[in-house]
Amino acid sequence: MGSLSNIDQSNNETRGKVITCKAAVVWAPKEPLVIEEVNVDPPQKMEVRIKILYTSICHTDLGAWKGENESQRAFPRILGHEAAGIVESVGEGVLDIKEGDHVIPIFNGECGDCGYCKSEKTNLCAKFRVNPMKSVMVVDGKTRFSTRDGQPIYHFLNTSTFSEFTVLDSACVVKIDPKASLKKMSLLSCGISTGVGAAWNTANVQSGSTVAIFGLGALGLAVASGARARGASRIIGIDINKDKFIKGQTMGMTHFINPKDLKRPVHEEIRELTDGGVDYSFECAGNLDVLREAFLSTHDGWGMTIILGIHPTPRMMPLHPMEFFDGRRITGTVFGDFKGKTQLPQFAEECMGGVVNLDEFITHELPFSKINEAFQLLIEGKSLRCVLEL
Amino acid sequence: MGSLSNIDQSNNETRGKVITCKAAVVWAPKEPLVIEEVNVDPPQKMEVRIKILYTSICHTDLGAWKGENESQRAFPRILGHEAAGIVESVGEGVLDIKEGDHVIPIFNGECGDCGYCKSEKTNLCAKFRVNPMKSVMVVDGKTRFSTRDGQPIYHFLNTSTFSEFTVLDSACVVKIDPKASLKKMSLLSCGISTGVGAAWNTANVQSGSTVAIFGLGALGLAVASGARARGASRIIGIDINKDKFIKGQTMGMTHFINPKDLKRPVHEEIRELTDGGVDYSFECAGNLDVLREAFLSTHDGWGMTIILGIHPTPRMMPLHPMEFFDGRRITGTVFGDFKGKTQLPQFAEECMGGVVNLDEFITHELPFSKINEAFQLLIEGKSLRCVLEL
Ligand SMILES: NC(=O)c1ccc[n+]([C@@H]2O[C@H](COP(=O)([O-])OP(=O)(O)OC[C@H]3O[C@@H](n4cnc5c(N)ncnc54)[C@H](O)[C@@H]3O)[C@@H](O)[C@H]2O)c1
Ligand SMILES: NC(=O)c1ccc[n+]([C@@H]2O[C@H](COP(=O)([O-])OP(=O)(O)OC[C@H]3O[C@@H](n4cnc5c(N)ncnc54)[C@H](O)[C@@H]3O)[C@@H](O)[C@H]2O)c1
Ligand SMILES: [Zn+2]
Ligand SMILES: [Zn+2]
Ligand SMILES: [Zn+2]
Ligand SMILES: [Zn+2]
Repeated sequence: MGSLSNIDQSNNETRGKVITCKAAVVWAPKEPLVIEEVNVDPPQKMEVRIKILYTSICHTDLGAWKGENESQRAFPRILGHEAAGIVESVGEGVLDIKEGDHVIPIFNGECGDCGYCKSEKTNLCAKFRVNPMKSVMVVDGKTRFSTRDGQPIYHFLNTSTFSEFTVLDSACVVKIDPKASLKKMSLLSCGISTGVGAAWNTANVQSGSTVAIFGLGALGLAVASGARARGASRIIGIDINKDKFIKGQTMGMTHFINPKDLKRPVHEEIRELTDGGVDYSFECAGNLDVLREAFLSTHDGWGMTIILGIHPTPRMMPLHPMEFFDGRRITGTVFGDFKGKTQLPQFAEECMGGVVNLDEFITHELPFSKINEAFQLLIEGKSLRCVLEL
Repeated sequence: MGSLSNIDQSNNETRGKVITCKAAVVWAPKEPLVIEEVNVDPPQKMEVRIKILYTSICHTDLGAWKGENESQRAFPRILGHEAAGIVESVGEGVLDIKEGDHVIPIFNGECGDCGYCKSEKTNLCAKFRVNPMKSVMVVDGKTRFSTRDGQPIYHFLNTSTFSEFTVLDSACVVKIDPKASLKKMSLLSCGISTGVGAAWNTANVQSGSTVAIFGLGALGLAVASGARARGASRIIGIDINKDKFIKGQTMGMTHFINPKDLKRPVHEEIRELTDGGVDYSFECAGNLDVLREAFLSTHDGWGMTIILGIHPTPRMMPLHPMEFFDGRRITGTVFGDFKGKTQLPQFAEECMGGVVNLDEFITHELPFSKINEAFQLLIEGKSLRCVLEL
């Protein structure tokens, strides 16, 4: 409680006021992020302002940084959506979160009130579901970030965590146990929850299930951890970067395939290895041809493919409708089908109990000032998650 | 039992011998069927020879007749897969079916022994699953049909029911209650079972569910009957032929949409009618653009589209992978996910009990000799099922 009262003290100075702090701003697609001073407005109705302590880079940040999707190009912008921090202040009407709370931001919010939030079938919220096009706050259509000379800086994925302070809707803020390591918990903001949730919630991997995972970044490896925790009998990892196989092994993968080493399509190899195909395949590479291989790698009659990867291409799915008559299914997952505010605290507790070894995912740590280096590590396939300390 | 002993008598004359009888033969795509005398060999190991009493025409016969799929073009061929009849004789090893049994053929067989048949997750059988390319018998790769001068005539869909006698694998023969009307039971061979099963087994429509059905042929109307039996609250029928709406109403449909009357896409109309979209949509037209509309007509978060239509085009599915992130799912169904031999007898009994009004589907009856007229009725959209009496 010592740190909490420290924060309470400082909050008296900032609460209700504009905070000037450092943030990493993207001014144009593919240009290096610029660490500069920005203004962060106080939280409005139902909003929360957070002091970010740790943040890391997910492939989705990469895509947005590259401006892969035309309509996503709102610049200048503050990216980042995997993080953990402490609440600096809350806006009017926020009752479930208070100053000093340890929290993680979620890009796929949960208002708790809409038809979707009340349904057990989906984790999409009518108001705060993930939307890469959205770049302003819901309540007034404005940004809370601006440059020192008043130019608005756009938000990203409901979160914008590449900043010492950020403002989120309270529907996108999950309170966690203050005893948990904020550094580790930051990983639950996106990658780990999405991967593990894809195995647990979307696929519902069972003891003895067979699994193939295409793309062994943090997401693919989190799927593996989730599948292992459920007792999957075979976990096959597929990546064109063979360095990923080392981590894969410690995460419970039983086989590895580098498509570059094969003379035939990956799905033929997998079908042979698994007596007709795996029960579940996961696409974590964001590549349409990989998606087709993942689809064909499952067993006919009951196989299911789960799409996790973001596919920026305008190309349509390379599947023929008659292929569905072989009983293979396909589905997408956002945030691993976890309802963030309701279900993440429980998952965080399970992670503290060791169901997933979060440490394994932190391959690098750097100060916030070296964020461009961290981007480079991910681009080059050298890191899973590089955690930046603010 | 009177008729059974009659048949027993005549069987003594035909059992083990070639039967010469009338069949409707297709000699080339789109050419009128020719009723001519053919030879029907005795059933081989695990096969059954059936005297067909009733048969009708499904849209899938139309597709094969047109030779829509290049690799399906095995001619001369005997089409037909919806029928009912009486067992004339059985081959070596057939234990569950005997001479005189009342039976219906199924195009999607069930051997009962393979991994698929033993799994609860699929109705596809390793050996006898539906396969439009297959045109010979499994046991010896030969046909049981030939012309009077010995030229082989190919089989179709494991069944070939446009013949007074046909030979099937016993895995494709379902015994039914001899008290049931064979004329009505013939409809369970394909269309009605597929449609009702799609609603019950594939979608699992529940009381209060909302449903949209694209294409109101026998399949689409059978889906409606199945959905009504389950207590669906709204059943929206979509067809470009408005004459179909009359039957639709008696089958429990609550709304109708003729896309030709709309100034906007059908899915927009449906979303407005249903507060965001239906829970389930069914594609029973065999058209890719219709499939996309069906997909977009479901509610995001939990909607499911079931593909029933056969899509002969080589075009890929007009869906983008990112569209799966809205929580809409899609799946195909073969034979309504019924395991034919195991589950059809029970369904037949429910139909005898009136859960589906089979009579409503029989819009026409003709003698077998008028089969070309029956094809024409289906092509022109005038019939649901025209039952031919042999
Ligand atoms: N659905 C969601 O909610 C959600 C959440 C977070 C991230 N994502 C997406 O998930 C994907 C994975 O994210 P990440 O952070 O793990 O990315 P990453 O860049 O760390 O990992 C991607 C991996 O895919 C591999 N790969 C690339 N091309 C391949 C190919 N042709 N065959 C096999 N492997 C290939 C790369 O070598 C790399 O190891 C990204 O597309 C990301 O945008 C989705
Ligand atoms: N999956 C299976 O196991 C299975 C089994 C049997 C039949 N089928 C297929 O199911 C489909 C339906 O069979 P059926 O016998 O009921 O056919 P049908 O010809 O009687 O009915 C098709 C209906 O679709 C309508 N239609 C055509 N184009 C349309 C459009 N653009 N928009 C809306 N409606 C349109 C027609 O007017 C007609 O009413 C066929 O493709 C058939 O091959 C599949
Ligand atoms: Zn992410
Ligand atoms: Zn909500
Ligand atoms: Zn049919
Ligand atoms: Zn079988």
